[in-house]
Order: sequence, then C-alpha cells, then structure tokens
Amino acid sequence: MDDRDLLARVQAVIGREQTLDDCAVLPLGGEYLVATTDMLHETTDFPRGMTPWQMGWMAVAVTISDIAAMGADPRAVLLAIGLDDAERLLPIMEGAHDCCRAFGAELAGGDLDAHTELTIVSSGIGTVSPEHLVRRRGARPGDVVAVTGRLGEAQAALAGYDHLTLRLLEPQPRVAAGRALGRAGATAMMDISDGLALSLYDLQAAGGYGFAVDTRRLPLPAGVPEKEGCEFALYGGGDFELLFTCPEDILPVPGVEAVVVGRVIEEPRVLADGAVLERRGYQHRWSGEG
Amino acid sequence: MDDRDLLARVQAVIGREQTLDDCAVLPLGGEYLVATTDMLHETTDFPRGMTPWQMGWMAVAVTISDIAAMGADPRAVLLAIGLDDAERLLPIMEGAHDCCRAFGAELAGGDLDAHTELTIVSSGIGTVSPEHLVRRRGARPGDVVAVTGRLGEAQAALAGYDHLTLRLLEPQPRVAAGRALGRAGATAMMDISDGLALSLYDLQAAGGYGFAVDTRRLPLPAGVPEKEGCEFALYGGGDFELLFTCPEDILPVPGVEAVVVGRVIEEPRVLADGAVLERRGYQHRWSGEG
Repeated sequence: MDDRDLLARVQAVIGREQTLDDCAVLPLGGEYLVATTDMLHETTDFPRGMTPWQMGWMAVAVTISDIAAMGADPRAVLLAIGLDDAERLLPIMEGAHDCCRAFGAELAGGDLDAHTELTIVSSGIGTVSPEHLVRRRGARPGDVVAVTGRLGEAQAALAGYDHLTLRLLEPQPRVAAGRALGRAGATAMMDISDGLALSLYDLQAAGGYGFAVDTRRLPLPAGVPEKEGCEFALYGGGDFELLFTCPEDILPVPGVEAVVVGRVIEEPRVLADGAVLERRGYQHRWSGEG
Repeated sequence: MDDRDLLARVQAVIGREQTLDDCAVLPLGGEYLVATTDMLHETTDFPRGMTPWQMGWMAVAVTISDIAAMGADPRAVLLAIGLDDAERLLPIMEGAHDCCRAFGAELAGGDLDAHTELTIVSSGIGTVSPEHLVRRRGARPGDVVAVTGRLGEAQAALAGYDHLTLRLLEPQPRVAAGRALGRAGATAMMDISDGLALSLYDLQAAGGYGFAVDTRRLPLPAGVPEKEGCEFALYGGGDFELLFTCPEDILPVPGVEAVVVGRVIEEPRVLADGAVLERRGYQHRWSGEG
C-alpha cells in the first residue's frame, strides 16, 4: 500500500474535495485561507548528512511550497517536533525561523515532544484573494503545461552529483513564482515533489484532462548526462518546483523562470513523446524499505 | 530537561510573545485567526486500551481545546499521521472527523507517513473577533479565578476509577464555555492539561500576578476519596477543562458550569490555602521514563 492508496481511504471519510489540492481552502471574510500540514521523519525524509539547521529549513520549505502552489502568500507556520536529542532543538528552530523569514511567514509557535526518531511536522497558513487562487483542477485543453526552474536536481544530488547538493538540502520554495502565476491567470498548479510523472498524473486525476509532454523540452539538471537527467526529472523526488497550466499567451510571466514542456489534451492520459508515460516516481512505501 | 525548559529555548528563537498562549494569534482582515498544533505519540500520550477511533477523537480534541481556551470558534483541523499499521487509518480518521463535527470544525486534510510508532499531529485554526479574544495574560488583582467542570477526572480514571474512563478516553473540549466566557468578559484563560497547579503557574508567568486558591472549593471527581481527588485535581494530567479569571460580577455566565476556586493577587505567587502551592504536575520527561 502506498501514499496514494491510503489517500483513497482518507477521501472516503473527509471527502475527495478536501484532499485534491496542496492545501485545504477555507473562505474567511473576503479572502481565502489555505492550510497544509507535512510530516517529516529523519530516516525517510531527511537526506543523510543533513544538519539540524537544514532539517528545520526543509520542514518549513515543504509547507511553504504547498502554499506557493495555490498562488497564496505564506503567513504563518507552526512546528510540532518529536525530539530525539534536546541539543538539536535550537538549530532546528533557527533553520525553520530563517526559512519563514526568507519567504515572508511568521514562525508562530508549536509543540514539543520526546521521540526516539526525530519527527518534524510543519503546518502552514497562507492567504490569497479568491480570484488568484489556483487549484490542481482547472486546466483546459489547449492550455500549455509548464514548470519552473530545473527538474531532477535533488535526485541528481542524491545520486552523487555534488554540485547540486544545496538544491537537495536547502530547497527554495517558489513563492514569488506561485504568486505571480496566480495573478497572471494560471489555470491549474501544484508543486512537484515526487517527480514530474506522478505530478502530471495527480493533475490529471484532479482535473480530468490529460497531458502530452515533449521530454526534449524538460529543463534538466546541469552537469548531468541527458538520459540520466531525464530519468531524474521524470521520476526523481525532492524537487520544489511548480507544475502549472495556463493559456500560452500569458507567458512569459514577468519574474517567473518557466519552461513550456507540453500541452493539455482532451483525453485523460499522460503522454510523453507520444507514448503513455510510466506512472512511477518517488513514493513512500509501507512495507518498510523506505 | 522537561517541556518547560525546552520552551525557554524555543522562546529564544521565535520570541516569548508567540509561545505564551494556547494558540498563536494572527490578525486577518477584521478578525483574529488563532492557530495551534499538537503532537501525540502512542506510548506516551494515548492511554493503554484506547481504540483507534478514540485516538483520532483525542488528537482533535486536544487542538480544539486550545482554540476554545482563546474564546475562539474552531474552524478547521489538519491531521498529520505517522502510521504504524494501515488498518488503523480509517477508524482514526473517523474519530477525528466525528470530533470535528461535534465541535463545528471541518476536518480539512492532512498528511500521511509510515512510522514504527503511531504519531498523530493535529493542527487547528479558529477565528474570534478581537474584542472576544482571551489570552493567558490579562488577569487583574481582585478578579476571581475559576474552572469549568470537574478536575482530576482523567487522572482518577488512570488510577482505576473505571466510572470515569470515558472522561479520559473521550475528552470533551469546552468550546461553548470558552466562547461564552470570551464574550462575557473573561480576563485570562487557558485549558488545563497538566493539572491545575502547573496551569496556575503558567497563567502567573504569562500575566505577572499571582493566585490564592482555596482547595476546599475545587470541583473534585465524583466517587473518589476527597484527599485523593484533590491530589488528582491539582497535579493530575488529562483534563480538558478551562481555567479562567474574570470580574466576579459577570458570574454566572449563562450556559457555563464553572466554580470559583480563588482570587487573583498582586504578589507573583501561587498559594493554596495560604501556603505556596507545589509546582509539579504531569509533564513529559526527556530522560526516557515517559
């Protein structure tokens, strides 16, 4: 059983609508509040060699990235920490605090507990005006599908391409890009964390329409052989880029580095270079192999 | 090192202000948003014999209780679950969902992860108008100090008083009471989770003034010998009642079952029957004994 199977069970209880997007959406006054929570465990989620400061940074970055994917402004982050060693608390909090400050959020509090394995859960709140909110559904046939930045860099770092190590260990959520894309009229958006392939399938499941991607257009990691880089981009984990759809004529959006990689199509399939794209990528497994 | 020592380290990073209350407070439009997160682990936080449904209920109840303690209305709860056994997911979600529904909140989403020990982190958002928000600081000398419900019931259940088992396993956060007390003019408030004694010291630390409590007035658990009941009320864990201060003349507040147990005093001490109250209670320990 993997994450996406479990999700189906959760949807049976709380409704499908609330689990389709990177954040829950709550109308509040004239604005929309978006809210998300992410759980990270040391052995499965933090790359080996990561410092406690980087763990704090990453825990917050994951949550802020979810908020950015809705086109929203991050406002506040709460941390719940299951701490294995009290000495690690301060650098974790400093990393979290620095990430919050870098992206305009307030580290607003949290909870502490003792645990044998370090566990960090970050929960974040953002705000966005209703007309700028972007969900996973909303893509229309004829829209282009595009990505920010370069894909596969984190996976390349994991595979030993050390010049990309900071891309893995100190990820930069695309807050400014998400906000600009929401304002410019992106029709669907999510952040890529388990590879482009699974993200395309997630967008397809949420919105119904399919995608035709041209792998020659993928922005690959620099300094990595093309074939390997393409594998990392499609199926690798750890990226914090945005995947979005929009009418072609709104591009380029000022300030947003993005590359068109394909088109939204009527049929509910995900194609790469004309063939069905393999539905695999980085997923937590429940059998214990990580 | 205990919870309160660690808190001091956290305050050094994120500021004391944000850690004084049961929730963080964020101005948003004309309202205040309150937000809180709570981490629960199976071995240390869930009483033995608890069903997965009850674990889900309790995880949400803890968070909703924090929101109630600010005088706020619970709006949304997110759950992050570190799951040891996929079969437990559905009943946990149902318990969480039922607790949300019982207190007017929406179970809005969450995150799932695999873990060796069941871990549930619930994060909650509430709203309150600025004039009805109640913080831990705000008590004034001459105010009375009062509590809702009965104290020590959860600890009595743990000690074997089986008629109180549901008070331990299916706690009822005091949402209606918190809201009514905020509207009626309570001057300070928090929820009691580690016993009355530690909670009084927390209120004292937040607001500066002290308290003089008359232990004969404490609302003790029914069916428990008085001396034991008093020990549970002062030093036991697991209660979900509210501790608050207010001008005496606003009592009784319609719909709120509350008992005056003492007065706010000028000097920054916590007295019980004229002597300094022992500063102990239920706390997580970081040395491994639970």
